Amino acid sequence: MVQQYPSHLLERAVQEFSKLPGIGRKTALRLVLHELRQPTEDVQSFAESLLTMKREVKFCKCCHNISDSDVCPICSDARRDATTICVVENIQDVMAIENTQQFHGLYHVLGGIISPMDGIGPADLEIESLVSRVAEGEVKEVILALSPTMEGDTTNFYIFRKLAAYNVSISVIARGIAVGNELEYTDEVTLGRSILNRTPFNEK
Amino acid sequence: MVQQYPSHLLERAVQEFSKLPGIGRKTALRLVLHELRQPTEDVQSFAESLLTMKREVKFCKCCHNISDSDVCPICSDARRDATTICVVENIQDVMAIENTQQFHGLYHVLGGIISPMDGIGPADLEIESLVSRVAEGEVKEVILALSPTMEGDTTNFYIFRKLAAYNVSISVIARGIAVGNELEYTDEVTLGRSILNRTPFNEK
Repeated sequence: MVQQYPSHLLERAVQEFSKLPGIGRKTALRLVLHELRQPTEDVQSFAESLLTMKREVKFCKCCHNISDSDVCPICSDARRDATTICVVENIQDVMAIENTQQFHGLYHVLGGIISPMDGIGPADLEIESLVSRVAEGEVKEVILALSPTMEGDTTNFYIFRKLAAYNVSISVIARGIAVGNELEYTDEVTLGRSILNRTPFNEK
Repeated sequence: MVQQYPSHLLERAVQEFSKLPGIGRKTALRLVLHELRQPTEDVQSFAESLLTMKREVKFCKCCHNISDSDVCPICSDARRDATTICVVENIQDVMAIENTQQFHGLYHVLGGIISPMDGIGPADLEIESLVSRVAEGEVKEVILALSPTMEGDTTNFYIFRKLAAYNVSISVIARGIAVGNELEYTDEVTLGRSILNRTPFNEK
């Protein structure tokens, strides 16, 4: 049953909130009523933070990561290794890899992966700009860090073909059983790959 | 580990979103990045709906429900039974009861329940205004529809005492096993009460 709202203003705010991913109408109502109880300045601050971000945030013209300036802090950091580029699907992936503190090169954010089902082709992604970066000649290695899905594999393959003409080594992040996972419950494909791609044991 | 955000504008928006109840930093980031992908007009519409609501929404001066006008649509509806008032904790409860289509009287929204642990006393709630409504003499029955918790019971008792001087019957919504629940897994207090408060069987 469609819920009756006692106010059109409330109704509209709930509708807007329920457009957010993973937020249904019940949660939207809870969030809106929460905002209604907050001081006016807090609600203004909330709305303003969103509008300011939308208006002023930039995308790094080099790696297409989100940034406050034309070139993001990672790309403009001279201490980072500019000969290695890690290709990721989106901004969250950059943050996830940065959090590991295991990668010291630069990134390239594709803005999605090739997915014919969703109507996303190579032209919708930042692949040409990746090729241009590699064509400049400074890059020695491109690490493909996309999700291990069919779409990820397709995108990997497409980029691999596009970069084949250049003198650059291309690698894919390791796939195998996750740290802490039980062998018994790991799916066959992952387990099979983890045996094929076994690495020499070392004590570190 | 605290996540590094590549943009202060993004950081600020994520902070604002994560103030919402039940929204952690990971979800906040997902919501903010979703907004970032939306057209500017949509983001403006989102922010504006919230600001407009905050600025213009009113509370019914009669029942304290949320409303676009001084008196809410329920209180101003002449077809509703003005002799029965259903006392609820908040606006969501009004909507929940309206959805059942079983109640045709008016409401009174307390705006909370007595909860000394949270520092909420009778003076913080719309109890005096309920007494005034009853004092006018038109009301014949007050239905207490608060949550079956200690705080709800305390509030029920407080209101009962406040209204004792008036010629009005006071009832509490039925407590018992929920429709569809298994008897076996119902807690003892509820099951005990549902036996004590058994109702005559009828075929409807």
